[in-house]
This record gives sequence, C-alpha cells and structure tokens, in this order.
Amino acid sequence: MNLNLMDKHQDIIDKAVQALHERTFFAQYPENPMPDVYGENADKEGREKYKTHLNTQFTELLQEDPEAWVGQEESPYEQQPLGVTYPFFSPETLVSRAEEAFHQWRKVKPADRASLLVEVLERMKTRFFEIAYATMHTTGQAYMMSFQASGPHAADRALEAIASGYEEQTRFPVSTEWEKPMGKYNLKLNKSWRAVPKGVGLVIGCSTFPTWNTVPGMFASLVTGNPVIIKPHPKAVLPIAIVVAEVQKVLQENGLTPNICQLAVDADDRLITKDLAENPKVKLIDYTGGNEFGNYVEGLPGKVTFTEKTGVNSIILDSMDDLDKVAQNLAFSVTLYSGQMCTAPQNFYVPEAGLKVGGETVPYEEVVEKIAGAVTALVNNPKAGPHILGAIQNPATTERIKGAGSVKGREVLSSSDFSNPMFANARTCTPVIYEVDATEKESYSRELFGPVVLIIKTKSTDQSIEIAKDMATSHGAISCGAYTTDPAIKEKIMDEMSLAGTPVSFNLTGGIYVNQNASFSDFHVTGGNPAGNASFTNPEFVIKRFTWVGFREPVQG
Amino acid sequence: MNLNLMDKHQDIIDKAVQALHERTFFAQYPENPMPDVYGENADKEGREKYKTHLNTQFTELLQEDPEAWVGQEESPYEQQPLGVTYPFFSPETLVSRAEEAFHQWRKVKPADRASLLVEVLERMKTRFFEIAYATMHTTGQAYMMSFQASGPHAADRALEAIASGYEEQTRFPVSTEWEKPMGKYNLKLNKSWRAVPKGVGLVIGCSTFPTWNTVPGMFASLVTGNPVIIKPHPKAVLPIAIVVAEVQKVLQENGLTPNICQLAVDADDRLITKDLAENPKVKLIDYTGGNEFGNYVEGLPGKVTFTEKTGVNSIILDSMDDLDKVAQNLAFSVTLYSGQMCTAPQNFYVPEAGLKVGGETVPYEEVVEKIAGAVTALVNNPKAGPHILGAIQNPATTERIKGAGSVKGREVLSSSDFSNPMFANARTCTPVIYEVDATEKESYSRELFGPVVLIIKTKSTDQSIEIAKDMATSHGAISCGAYTTDPAIKEKIMDEMSLAGTPVSFNLTGGIYVNQNASFSDFHVTGGNPAGNASFTNPEFVIKRFTWVGFREPVQG
Repeated sequence: MNLNLMDKHQDIIDKAVQALHERTFFAQYPENPMPDVYGENADKEGREKYKTHLNTQFTELLQEDPEAWVGQEESPYEQQPLGVTYPFFSPETLVSRAEEAFHQWRKVKPADRASLLVEVLERMKTRFFEIAYATMHTTGQAYMMSFQASGPHAADRALEAIASGYEEQTRFPVSTEWEKPMGKYNLKLNKSWRAVPKGVGLVIGCSTFPTWNTVPGMFASLVTGNPVIIKPHPKAVLPIAIVVAEVQKVLQENGLTPNICQLAVDADDRLITKDLAENPKVKLIDYTGGNEFGNYVEGLPGKVTFTEKTGVNSIILDSMDDLDKVAQNLAFSVTLYSGQMCTAPQNFYVPEAGLKVGGETVPYEEVVEKIAGAVTALVNNPKAGPHILGAIQNPATTERIKGAGSVKGREVLSSSDFSNPMFANARTCTPVIYEVDATEKESYSRELFGPVVLIIKTKSTDQSIEIAKDMATSHGAISCGAYTTDPAIKEKIMDEMSLAGTPVSFNLTGGIYVNQNASFSDFHVTGGNPAGNASFTNPEFVIKRFTWVGFREPVQG
Repeated sequence: MNLNLMDKHQDIIDKAVQALHERTFFAQYPENPMPDVYGENADKEGREKYKTHLNTQFTELLQEDPEAWVGQEESPYEQQPLGVTYPFFSPETLVSRAEEAFHQWRKVKPADRASLLVEVLERMKTRFFEIAYATMHTTGQAYMMSFQASGPHAADRALEAIASGYEEQTRFPVSTEWEKPMGKYNLKLNKSWRAVPKGVGLVIGCSTFPTWNTVPGMFASLVTGNPVIIKPHPKAVLPIAIVVAEVQKVLQENGLTPNICQLAVDADDRLITKDLAENPKVKLIDYTGGNEFGNYVEGLPGKVTFTEKTGVNSIILDSMDDLDKVAQNLAFSVTLYSGQMCTAPQNFYVPEAGLKVGGETVPYEEVVEKIAGAVTALVNNPKAGPHILGAIQNPATTERIKGAGSVKGREVLSSSDFSNPMFANARTCTPVIYEVDATEKESYSRELFGPVVLIIKTKSTDQSIEIAKDMATSHGAISCGAYTTDPAIKEKIMDEMSLAGTPVSFNLTGGIYVNQNASFSDFHVTGGNPAGNASFTNPEFVIKRFTWVGFREPVQG
C-alpha cells in the first residue's frame, strides 16, 4: 500500500465528512462542463475517446481469462448497437475471485481504503466527458445531464459514501485500556475492536443512471472492506465499465488484486444476476431498478440489501404567488430526461375549487391549462426542448406512453414524437398529461415510468395530502413537491409526508427542481417507504456493511 | 414537558455519549449493593417492598380499563406461585393505544425524550433492591446477580441506548441554509431535517434476564420517538413491570400519556405475542429468547427486528502460564447462574496432545481432570457455591441436564442436586461435564441451555479454532474465550473469530469472566452471526428505529 496516497487525499476525506454534517453546499467535482474548469479540449477528447470504444472489445479491465466477449448496448439516439463487447465470466468464477480478494482487501485499513478510493475518483474526473458520451448513448440522457449525473454528481455521491464509511469505521477507538475500580484493586483489560466487513458485495445497476445509482453502493461496500461485483444493466455497461477499470488500475498500482472490484456482464443467452444474488457467499446487495426484482432482492434470505425501487411521486398544489412560474418549474421537472428519473413527479393534485394565487382564486380548469401550456411551450422551444428531453432509453417506455389508455381520464396533452435536430433517428417522446378524478384510484396508484403526468382533481388540499401520503405509504415515493403559502398547511404536509418517509420540496420556482438532490445535503430516498430500503447516504447505508467485534485481555503485570 | 428535567440530566447524557466513544470504564449506576452506596436500609426495605407484591394485584400501572387480571409467575427458589396478577389487555387495545400515543410522543424533541428517560432510570435506581428480589424469585438468579444484572447493569445498558439514540438523532443539523453558486447568482434554499420514528415498537422479553435484556430495545425505541409495548416472558414479569410503572409515572407527570410505554401480559389461556408481532401497526420488534421463535420474528415481513437468540459458545485452550487459575476461572463461568446465561461457555476445545503450560506439556486427560476438579471444588464450597449457582428457572432445563444422554461421549462429572441452605425447596443443579470427540459433531453443534460443558478433544489448536469458527458461523455464538501465549495463534483466533462475528476474551483469570460484558465498552452480541441480528449498543441498534426525512424551500427575497 502506497502511503503517500493517504497523505494526498486525507484533506478531501476530512472536508467531505465535515460537509456531511453541515449539509450546506459542497461539491468536490465541479458540475460545470466548461473549458475553463475541465480544459479546452476535454469535451472533444472525451467524445473521441468514447468513439474509440465502439465496435471493439473493452480491454481495460484487469480481470483475467474471460470466457467470452459479450455486449448488447444500443444508442437511443442512433437506434443502433454500440458494438462494444466486455469480458464474460461465470457467476462462480466471479464469486470465487471476490472471495479470494476479500481476504486481501479486508486487511487494508479503513483510512487507506478511503484514500485509495478517492484516488479512483480523481482519475475518473479525467474521464468525465468520455463517460458523459457513453451515458448519452446508453441511457438517452441529454448531454448536460449525462455529464453532470454520470460525472461530477456521481463522483460526489461516491465521495459521500467513502466519507461516511470512513467516519463510521473510525468513530470508535481501535484500542483502549479499560480499568474498573474493584475496591481493593483495579481490574485492567486491554481492549481492541475491529470493523469486520460482511463479505462479497453485489451491485446491480439500472439502465437509466448507470454510474450515479451504482457508485454509492459500490464505494460504500469497498470503503468498508468488502469486495464488489458490479453487475450493470446489459443496456448500460460502458459508463460504469470505465469506472471499474479505473478502480482496478489503482488497486493494481497499490499492490492489490483487481478482483477486489469486478465487472460482471450478462451474456446474450445467460442472465447472471439471480445466480450472483443467490450465491451464499454474496452477503451485500445494492439494487436499483423495478419493484418486482427489487422485492425479490429484499426477500433473499441471509443478505443485507440496499434497494432503490420505484414510487409514485406527488405534487400537492394549494396556493402560490405566481402560477405561471410554478407551471414552468413543473413543466421542466416532467420534461427533464422525458420523466425517466426516479425523482420525476407524476401525480399532480389540484383541488376542484382551484388554487389561491396571490389572493385570487384560479379555477381548476385554468390550472390544468396552465400546466399543459407550460409543457407545450417548453418542448416546442428549440433552444430548450431537445436539451432537456433527451431520448427514451427503452422502447417499452414509448409503447407505455402511447398506450396509456388504461388511465381512466381525459387526455389533456398528447405525447408527440419529437425530432431531435442532432440525431435524426433518436427515440423521443414528449410528456403526455391526463386528467383523472380522485375516485379513479386504480389509474394513479402505480408508477407510469416515463413522461406521464396525471392531474388529479381532489375535493380539497386535505384530500390531496391524504392521497399523496397514501401513495407514498402504499406504493413508495422518492420525491414530493408542494406549493402553499399557508404555514399551517405547510406544517401539515411536512408532518404527514414525514410519516410516509418522503422528503418535500416547497414552493420551487426558477432554477431548482423537485427531481434534483444534492450530494452531502439531500438524503436521496429515505428508506422509509416501499420505494426503497436505503438512503444515499445516511449512516445506515454504510454501517450495515460491517460488524463491530471486540477483543480483550487482562493487562499483564 | 418540564424543561427543568432536561437541564437536570443533560450532564448524564453527555457523559454517557462520551463514554460510548472512549469505551473505557464507565458506570452511572454503582454495581455494589452495599449500604454505604445505596443506604443503610435499602436492602431490607427492598425485600419488604417485594413481599408486598405477592398475592396481590400489581396496581401501579396507569393503563386504564383492564380486561382481566392475570399472572403465572413462580419462584424457582420456593417452587410456588408468586400470586402477583397484572392487568390484561387484548393485542388490539394495546396496539391502538400505542398508535394513538405515537402521535404525542413523536413530537417530543429527542433531547427532551432522552432527559425524561434518564429521570426514569434515576427513579428505577431507588427500586433496585425490590427489583433484585423480584428477579431472584422469577429467574432463579442468586442475590448478587439479581441485584447487579437487573438493577445497575440494566440501568447502564438502558442509559447506553438513550445516549446512543440521542447522539444519532442530533448528529445532523435540524436546519441549515444551503447556498449554491450558479455563476451569475447563488441558489439559496432553507433546508430542515427530521428524524422520524418508525412507529409502534414491541419488546419481547426472556425468562432469565427480564430487565437486562429488555431495557436496551425498550429505551432505544423510546428515545427515538417510538411508543413501546413491553411483552415480558409470562414467568418473569414483576421486575420489568416495576420499570414500566416508573416510565408511566414520569410520562404522566410530564403531561404525556402513559400509553407511550405499555405492559402486555399473557393470560393463562391466551398467549398474545404472535398477535402483537404480526399486527401491521407494529414496526419494530426487539426479541430475546430461543432460536425458533427468534427466526420467526426475523422472518416477519415489514418489520425492523433486533434479536438475541442462542448460540454455541466456545473456549479454545492452547497454552497458558497457570492451568489451575485457568480452570478456576472457567469453573466459575460455567457455574455462574448454573450456565443459564447467553454468554456462558459450553464447548471447550483441548488438543489431544495436551496443553503447553509454562513450558511443560500437560496431557489431555489431566486437563479434563483439572477442569472437572475446579468445578467440583467451587460447587462444594459452601461460601461460594450457592451464591454463584442460584436456582434453575425452568424445570425443562433440569430435565435436559439429567437426560443429556444424547451427547455421545463420556460423562466426566455428573450434575448433582444441590441443596441451597437458604431455600430448602430451590430447584438447583450443578454443572455436568461430558468429554466428546471432535468427530461427534452432532453432539456439540447445538446449544444445551444450562450448566452443560462439553470438552471436545481436537487434533490441534488449528482444529479447535476451525470448529469454534464453524459453530459461530453455523449456529451462532455470543462469547468466546481463548487461552494462548503464542502471539501468532492469538492473531489467528482474532482473525477467524472476527469473521464469525464473535468477540474473544483472551487469557482471563482472576476476577473477570468470559460471561461478563461491560456497558459502554463491550458490544453485547455483534449481530454478525446467527446468535442475533443486533448489538447492545452499536449505532445500528438505534438508527434503524427512525428515518431521516428532509424538507427544503427557496429562501425568500
């Protein structure tokens, strides 16, 4: 282990730990992709580097003796295969290599592990643009989101996990002398403690945020001494493969086996996730994705699991100063990445009596029109629309939106195919809006993944709150937005939604949106409702990955 | 809420938090029952107070409208019923009252909850002797253990949970201003966070340590804002009933409903534990007891569970300076409360080639004789035996020991009925020792609750370690003792047992025993093997009882 590495990064780790506790703004990795931050040619070089991966084997990984080369990614912008192939290994090989690596990695001190992992992030930083293009062409995210979410924001979430894991492992002394007065003499024991990692970790990624949703669990398991097997979604491998490759290089440079962090890729004819998850040697599982598989993961016996599944996110509309600003803010939130974010709002509750806006009442119908109008204006703005919408990752999402006829309600705004000026073949889709009555519970009691908005007419704001809470409690929720100028209603929303384990953003207008969560400040997912059992990054997210074990012995003499 | 209460106890809370992190000796409640500590008449008054409970209704609880009066305790010392009856409530009534109380208790601030709960411990302190006699006559513990375990040690474990819960809830800011530089302007949000309690807690007690094993979960749930239903073992109610009564009085004095902490007692014809545990409103369950019910509890869907079950505790014998001192120390450990402790050692591994003792080799057979001899000497010492052995809580334990013939091995020492000089009718039993070969795995791969020792002849210390680790990994272990003068063997034992989530005490002789765990220093149970999924008191023990939920809103102006 190169100890210089530790000196090099302790400052970053200390600042990150401090940020976790202050929860004010902190970012180690600038989110602005401008040349004055990342260098004049960084974007161009990143794009070119991305292109060199196409139609070739990804040979950067240090995992030996692949059994085959496999890959099935395709670009939502070009609707054609990327042609990148990755080494395939059987689940047995992956787990047995991880198990072997465990006994090396667990003996590295927490501070050294943390420092080594920060070094990985510093190297990842030099590849943010390459990762951004890889993200665009696997997820369909627009350029800016691809850069920010998969680059600096992901790296900051990873740093958050490193910092939290480091702090939790160093909160109790390594050793102490325990001296108990017994009257005539003192009883003296030397005591020591070890934070013992649980064992092999598996991180199951999703198709829409291949690095952002993967790195928290990945770095949390690693910093606490557990080897990890990174199993990306088969349609979004390249962005995280680059990160894994950087981890492996840093491990090897420091005299450690690269198998401490392995990439596991599905073959076309063999999906390996269940085999990995059910292997008794796998002790920790991080999962992002749909409910069905997530519930299966949570139910696996003998595993500690960390899940982010799906939910029904609500917007409660009661009163405000400026409805236009509110409608514009919400239009952005539902349009951003065509609603393919776990934090995207879906159910908008509007009382039948309308909204109180700056002392006046705006009728229900006008509210619906305003929201639909704001969405239409945004998607039709050529300077904004394409850069916000991006493309649709999965053809099934497009089908779902087109055939959302199972919703019992009036279609207020149809989804239109939207032609992206830069990519003629892009798979795109604009938001669709339905108007649904509060009595049609079945229509709005599930996640409709993608750009689908349901405006639900309620009897009152009280009923809006009741439904929002019920959705979160019964089906999960990751975000909630609320607009009210009434302090009593605000407190009621906070109280009720807190019981449903759902964070609430109040009265957002301008450049901040309900979908956005900031590292080191906003806990992402609470773990307190069916949308997931874990949170980026509260202490629980890291301490469940190791066990405190103590030793003691009488002091000699 | 009486705010003076808070000022009164903040100092105790702060000192306890500090102790948790220093892990040096700390005790808020003195373990010595001497008059100069607790007062000249404390013991006598406590005994008399205990006697006033016999053959009467326990009317101290503030839970209204009991449906019946029930009780089935009997004294292991007198083998006759205590005749104490307690108010019975149906599980539905208990849960609905707890749910109602939840909405009051959760709104009390963490610091105020902590302070109120310390006040309870200060009142409990005035009843330590009464609780001690109640413990003797329900559990069969000897006087000294009854006093220490159910009184000061339990109160310190409760304080540990309060301190840990208080610290975890106050580690992040209540609110902050978040300001993000956006280039041309700064984005400013007011943010706030709440530690939201999970909901109704259920604490299921055991028959042998009615307060010590109950108060950690009870106070951990309470300090984090959850109402609790305390469900003791039907044979050991009185000690914890007194504690619950004190909680209820302090709650009421502070304007809060006593239903924040309810006692739930089984009727003779109606066991209510499963009904309580399966109630969907019950979110948290603490459990101490056997494996079968413990596994059922852990498997209940939608609950956060904290279990302490059973295990197979090992003693690894390799080398030492003085075998007599070792044998005396171990004899005490197996004799203490007739082995009815979850930390009592059971499997002693001795290599067939014998032990290295001060440079000489002591043959295997002589080691066995020494251990048996030390037990015999201890139980036959009239000044020690009765005060260490106590009585047998459950007649089934006596039967098990008498009929331990299923163990395939030689009986080295028979258990004898032991007559207690103070209680002619006491149900007593001295340790039985079997010699078993390492090949007879089935005989030693389970907990034989009570004073049963198996001396297992192994091929080598390496095999001893291997078996000890396998027992802990497969069947659980709460303690492990090891004797070696070889640093390499010591490190191997630490490494292997740490992977099995088992703390190790090395080379104990004199007045400290493997069964003893100190509050604020020794984590009790690690949560890292099948003996239980929780630990007194690591951060996980408290943080799983609440959810961090955040709120944010743009700064006005």
